[in-house]
Amino acid sequence: MTPSASSSNPSSNHSPNASPARGAAAGDLPPDHPLRAAVRKAVDDVRAATPLAQSFTNFVTINLVANAQLAAGGTAAMSFLPDDVLDTAAIAGATYVNVGTLLPFYGDALADIARGLHDLGRPWVLDPVAAGIGATRTAILESFRDVPPNVVRGNASEIIVLDRLWGLGGGEAGDRTRPAGVESVDDVESAAAAARRVARHLASRSPDGRGTVAVSGAIDLVTDGERDYRLPGGSAMMTKITGAGCSLGGVTATYLAVADPLTAALAASLHFNRAAETAAASAQGPGSFQTAFLDALWNTTAERIAASPILA
Amino acid sequence: MTPSASSSNPSSNHSPNASPARGAAAGDLPPDHPLRAAVRKAVDDVRAATPLAQSFTNFVTINLVANAQLAAGGTAAMSFLPDDVLDTAAIAGATYVNVGTLLPFYGDALADIARGLHDLGRPWVLDPVAAGIGATRTAILESFRDVPPNVVRGNASEIIVLDRLWGLGGGEAGDRTRPAGVESVDDVESAAAAARRVARHLASRSPDGRGTVAVSGAIDLVTDGERDYRLPGGSAMMTKITGAGCSLGGVTATYLAVADPLTAALAASLHFNRAAETAAASAQGPGSFQTAFLDALWNTTAERIAASPILA
Amino acid sequence: MTPSASSSNPSSNHSPNASPARGAAAGDLPPDHPLRAAVRKAVDDVRAATPLAQSFTNFVTINLVANAQLAAGGTAAMSFLPDDVLDTAAIAGATYVNVGTLLPFYGDALADIARGLHDLGRPWVLDPVAAGIGATRTAILESFRDVPPNVVRGNASEIIVLDRLWGLGGGEAGDRTRPAGVESVDDVESAAAAARRVARHLASRSPDGRGTVAVSGAIDLVTDGERDYRLPGGSAMMTKITGAGCSLGGVTATYLAVADPLTAALAASLHFNRAAETAAASAQGPGSFQTAFLDALWNTTAERIAASPILA
Repeated sequence: MTPSASSSNPSSNHSPNASPARGAAAGDLPPDHPLRAAVRKAVDDVRAATPLAQSFTNFVTINLVANAQLAAGGTAAMSFLPDDVLDTAAIAGATYVNVGTLLPFYGDALADIARGLHDLGRPWVLDPVAAGIGATRTAILESFRDVPPNVVRGNASEIIVLDRLWGLGGGEAGDRTRPAGVESVDDVESAAAAARRVARHLASRSPDGRGTVAVSGAIDLVTDGERDYRLPGGSAMMTKITGAGCSLGGVTATYLAVADPLTAALAASLHFNRAAETAAASAQGPGSFQTAFLDALWNTTAERIAASPILA
Repeated sequence: MTPSASSSNPSSNHSPNASPARGAAAGDLPPDHPLRAAVRKAVDDVRAATPLAQSFTNFVTINLVANAQLAAGGTAAMSFLPDDVLDTAAIAGATYVNVGTLLPFYGDALADIARGLHDLGRPWVLDPVAAGIGATRTAILESFRDVPPNVVRGNASEIIVLDRLWGLGGGEAGDRTRPAGVESVDDVESAAAAARRVARHLASRSPDGRGTVAVSGAIDLVTDGERDYRLPGGSAMMTKITGAGCSLGGVTATYLAVADPLTAALAASLHFNRAAETAAASAQGPGSFQTAFLDALWNTTAERIAASPILA
Repeated sequence: MTPSASSSNPSSNHSPNASPARGAAAGDLPPDHPLRAAVRKAVDDVRAATPLAQSFTNFVTINLVANAQLAAGGTAAMSFLPDDVLDTAAIAGATYVNVGTLLPFYGDALADIARGLHDLGRPWVLDPVAAGIGATRTAILESFRDVPPNVVRGNASEIIVLDRLWGLGGGEAGDRTRPAGVESVDDVESAAAAARRVARHLASRSPDGRGTVAVSGAIDLVTDGERDYRLPGGSAMMTKITGAGCSLGGVTATYLAVADPLTAALAASLHFNRAAETAAASAQGPGSFQTAFLDALWNTTAERIAASPILA
């Protein structure tokens, strides 16, 4: 008996105003779509090159972030001091920043690090964990506005708050969201417009004109600001282990070390969803689910990941 | 072959002066005792409501604390900055504070947090890990005296030291306890009088007049200062994974989000003991024990937890 | 399918200039060699005495360090403040210091702690994680030069950098090593000369004239500066979980609580290699490997550990 229902294939919950960008009917990308080839290449490249992705992340899930990066085929290094982070950024393929468990010195340090990554031209992923809670976190997230990351990954509430903190035009949505800790109180589709605005902002500040936002939920949404991709599947058991979102952010950085932001976000989310389904099939509870999930990250083939449903 | 004996059902080790409060003969609570109904309701309520419990806890076991809270049916958020903790306390059902791995800013921060929780009227659980070691920890624990938690959970040595630090009349016991790191050097019964004094102190400072102390050991002792409850069972393998006590403290906060202090402490300890027994039955060593323990927290029924032996 | 090859028995990769010290031909130590008896005694003594080893270690792998120490038979306590560390050092058999994830206050704190351990005469193990990255880490490692540990455990790159930072004569090797995060870019044999110099430096500053360096890799190298010991075996899966090296450092401290530096380093490395082989035989990936590894640390017999190949 489990205390809450677990579904490995949640039914669609698209809201009426969540139609794909530009009015196209949502349908699975064809097998020969270039994005599928790009995803497959990214998975293969990570496993061939074992790229280093660095993380500045919270203390709760730092171990799982590193182990997920290793299980996906990369290597990991974690740092907190600006001199450490920027030295390592110079040799790492990408950096992951997660604002989950703040310490007093983070306010100055993270502003310096974001500026340093920007000046070095090093790609990074932001995970705005618990956005909206605490004056310190708000100040840190605001400081990233002008030197933003290449990818933002968060839950719906966090993306809505980030859009509002950066003043990107989502003020009208603000009143609807009250943070509830680290869990989302909004569904993915309610964050779609905010996600597109944030993605366009990232792109506008990036030398290569690219930026991507990934919103995690029952059906993940990945958008580059121009086109939305919805990724069904995964497992509700992912919400019963701590760090599913953080480790997805970390593995997104692993993929960003070998691929562009959109491909990296898609590859990481698809890899996680397929591995979660495999793990859920054998798990007896959240303990064995986490063990099986790391095994499945390691074993899931690039072919299976690239053949995932991608609704666009 | 295992290097030390593991018993899933340690024999009774009551000391002669460990008789139940008020001279009653110790016996199992009857099946229709109201406390059993309260425990069962608490387990059901956590699984139905997935309450948020916040933690300010040590870096060693922070991941297990969160995963145990999730496996028990709640949700988790971890914070260290006063603005974070107090913002989150306002939306969390309860907060867990563990003084295991101190950083320099904790002295001021934890005093402010305890005062803030008191002023907000938010319930919290204290885990006085390693009480008696280090001047910083001693100052922090002393600062909690006048704005104490609703529940204290610790091992016997920690409870004895806390009683002494708070000057509650246990001076005579002080000389017997020399901290030995994070492991207890005293048995549970030797802390019974201190536990009752601390529980009465908690109650005296709480608006609802309630307070509970849980002493973990081979046979756990839970007391509200008026009556003692002894909880046999569990598994010695719990001492071979790090964080068994910390995660029990965290899950006590999860239960405190839906129940009074005594019910919360009983429900958490009983849930842990039954899950530990299930895990020990299949474990090959401490690695598989921890995995099976999280699975068992998830799967153990409210009926089984509420039917546990409770000697009073 | 696994993304990279995993071998549980890597083939020998001795380089031509990696001959044993003093020109002896490398061969397995005989069954009755006193070192084998010393290793067996150390394993038995840890399991009988459950010694406390304290750690000041990084946030990524702190949980695995503690769990590995428990699974090897010891007990664990983790601290970061000088008053905590030195209070605990007085009751702990040994202390483990790992400079992986630095915070701002570590610069002063770790210099004070090393000096305090030296003045107290308490044995300790240093893990110079990511040596060469970041000005803060460099300053910390330099501060240890005159109050060094009794054992250093690291990968080849870290040992080469430490030798250079301490100015022990390895300047010529310096240009070859560019840190690549926390992974070694050098093979074990390329660090052999540096390891011997560092070991002799440790011995020169120790009251008992002893010091040992352990270099982890496909074939581990352990040296007391006079004689080298090479330990084949283990599993490449150890590189696919985070903290294999850190937890080896922590367990080396556990053994240092009951044995001399050379015996402690040998016992810990041999224990890890045999447990890794057992775990690799049943693992489906890195998740189940870590679980099985902790089980195997717990279950591997002292006889098997002491009978390991030790090439000298």
